[in-house]
Amino acid sequence: MRRVSEPITSRQRFLDALRGRVQAAPPGWMMRQAGRYLPEYMSASAGRPFMERVRDPELSAELTLQPIRRFGMDAAVVFSDILVPPSAMGLDVRFVESKGPILNPPVRDAAAIARLEPFDPLVATGFLAETLRGVRAALGSSHALIGFCGAPFTTASYLIEGGSSKSYERTKAMLFGQPALFDELQRRLVDALLPYLAMQVGAGADALQIFDSWGGSLDAATYRRMVLPHLTRLVAGAKAEGVPVIVYANGGDHLLEVLLATGADAISLDWRTSPEEARRRTAGRVALQGNLDPTILFAGPEATRAAVGSLLAGFTGQPGYVFNVGSGLLPGTPVESVAAAFETLQALR
Amino acid sequence: MRRVSEPITSRQRFLDALRGRVQAAPPGWMMRQAGRYLPEYMSASAGRPFMERVRDPELSAELTLQPIRRFGMDAAVVFSDILVPPSAMGLDVRFVESKGPILNPPVRDAAAIARLEPFDPLVATGFLAETLRGVRAALGSSHALIGFCGAPFTTASYLIEGGSSKSYERTKAMLFGQPALFDELQRRLVDALLPYLAMQVGAGADALQIFDSWGGSLDAATYRRMVLPHLTRLVAGAKAEGVPVIVYANGGDHLLEVLLATGADAISLDWRTSPEEARRRTAGRVALQGNLDPTILFAGPEATRAAVGSLLAGFTGQPGYVFNVGSGLLPGTPVESVAAAFETLQALR
Repeated sequence: MRRVSEPITSRQRFLDALRGRVQAAPPGWMMRQAGRYLPEYMSASAGRPFMERVRDPELSAELTLQPIRRFGMDAAVVFSDILVPPSAMGLDVRFVESKGPILNPPVRDAAAIARLEPFDPLVATGFLAETLRGVRAALGSSHALIGFCGAPFTTASYLIEGGSSKSYERTKAMLFGQPALFDELQRRLVDALLPYLAMQVGAGADALQIFDSWGGSLDAATYRRMVLPHLTRLVAGAKAEGVPVIVYANGGDHLLEVLLATGADAISLDWRTSPEEARRRTAGRVALQGNLDPTILFAGPEATRAAVGSLLAGFTGQPGYVFNVGSGLLPGTPVESVAAAFETLQALR
Repeated sequence: MRRVSEPITSRQRFLDALRGRVQAAPPGWMMRQAGRYLPEYMSASAGRPFMERVRDPELSAELTLQPIRRFGMDAAVVFSDILVPPSAMGLDVRFVESKGPILNPPVRDAAAIARLEPFDPLVATGFLAETLRGVRAALGSSHALIGFCGAPFTTASYLIEGGSSKSYERTKAMLFGQPALFDELQRRLVDALLPYLAMQVGAGADALQIFDSWGGSLDAATYRRMVLPHLTRLVAGAKAEGVPVIVYANGGDHLLEVLLATGADAISLDWRTSPEEARRRTAGRVALQGNLDPTILFAGPEATRAAVGSLLAGFTGQPGYVFNVGSGLLPGTPVESVAAAFETLQALR
């Protein structure tokens, strides 16, 4: 039990929210808070290809900590990428300027699925364990540390498309045309992601977030039938590690009820869901995280303060609320708007 | 009154649906049914830059008619582009392979908005009137002909970004940061779009569709406050031309109630809205069009037939239903899947 005189730490504030506690002063962080909009990110990582930054524990720990130092977010999210597991499974993963990630070879048939290698997360992705331990040591118990992975659908789509996609034609051709094959791919991914998440908890992560970045491209009935069983298994396994689990689907307003069915502790909301609708549709059964439209920050600090104020009002009384953006911070986001958002949040303390 | 012995035409079937009639055998067409997935489109338009295709009445009439000949859709949608009005207003509009449209100069301040030229649609866009008259002459009264334009938000976003965008940072910076300026831009666009739509009706369009292709990037409260007044004025003006009006917002599941408030005769649904939810949320107050996931066609004719069958079952009894895709057909769509979709639809007749 916390003593009355002891001030609550950021970490405690964050974990309390994920466990469903109503808080007058909610915690907050931002998806992609460690990133290209920060001048210190650009100077620390200049000249290093993206996957190299991720694989360098000293650099990635530094990049993880930068936004905490500048803005005092309550949680740090480890600087890493959802394509680390595909890389550990034997695919060549590269980030090409203005094209995004390229994965080789693409995984489009049973033979390619069979070739995916299981991996020992402490060996193949030991750099991430080292990063997490470094960040944990730097943070002590003052701030929370979030580990993460991509959801089965999103990870599968990268493998099948061989990179990003606008419409996921190949992914959905497999999903709708060869559902057993798509099932098998998701099963193998979840088999690999479970020990990968366990490793992150072992290395110091206080909470885990599962990103279904492209899940919003599926209608709810298809998602429920084809994706939910795999995502539910992943969530259950992650929770069994003893930490709270957050699920997020970009463009996922129509998936809210399906995400609720995963059993996650919290749902991170896309900005297109209004706080009122989110609360009505989840009815206190889950903590909520979100969901400032990240483009509002481009309108400057004043517009940001007003938008954050109105967002926080919309979530007042929610049993378990974590302030966040509704989609990752964009390159070019004005730093002073991010500062204004956290000043508004922290003024409640 | 139609005589009992007289078979119903495709045109009548389509217009009856838009007027809210329950039909055991609904009409259908597909967004971007005239396009790159068709071999005859590729051969007819080879070597012609995109805007040249649009401005050549003979070619664009031919491209409009190609899918009707091959698949017997109930309605033809004129081969044109939502960037025709920006071009007529004085912007240079080009389509660059793999980059999409580029608009020059971008419209980012009051001076640039003031420079937008009003235009006489029979002069500046007379090619479109000629295309529509040509298609109308070819179709006679057997098939419906749909004219269209971009919605104020989507058109504004192209002007402000100077092309396509992933996140609409500049557009939303203006919307949230300089709302009066964003209002003024939308007002001028609607002023230009009203006579442009009237011209299309005068040249033979039976119905009009307003595409808010990027409207889904706004949350509902912002859309309602900032965009709905302008869209409503456009819908009302279009309806005053005496034809039914359809509105469509890609990714617009969360905007259904707002689109209902425009007073449009029909809402074209994104594929992420289930038929059941769409019917519950619109309660027979509007005709519905949609909403097959266009990527299902990539899974082949068999998967397509099953998906169309289940979609039609979901809309059975809806007062006013038009079969369509939930987003435009994609390049590379298998022609045999499109054929399978219309065979399934037409088997009900």
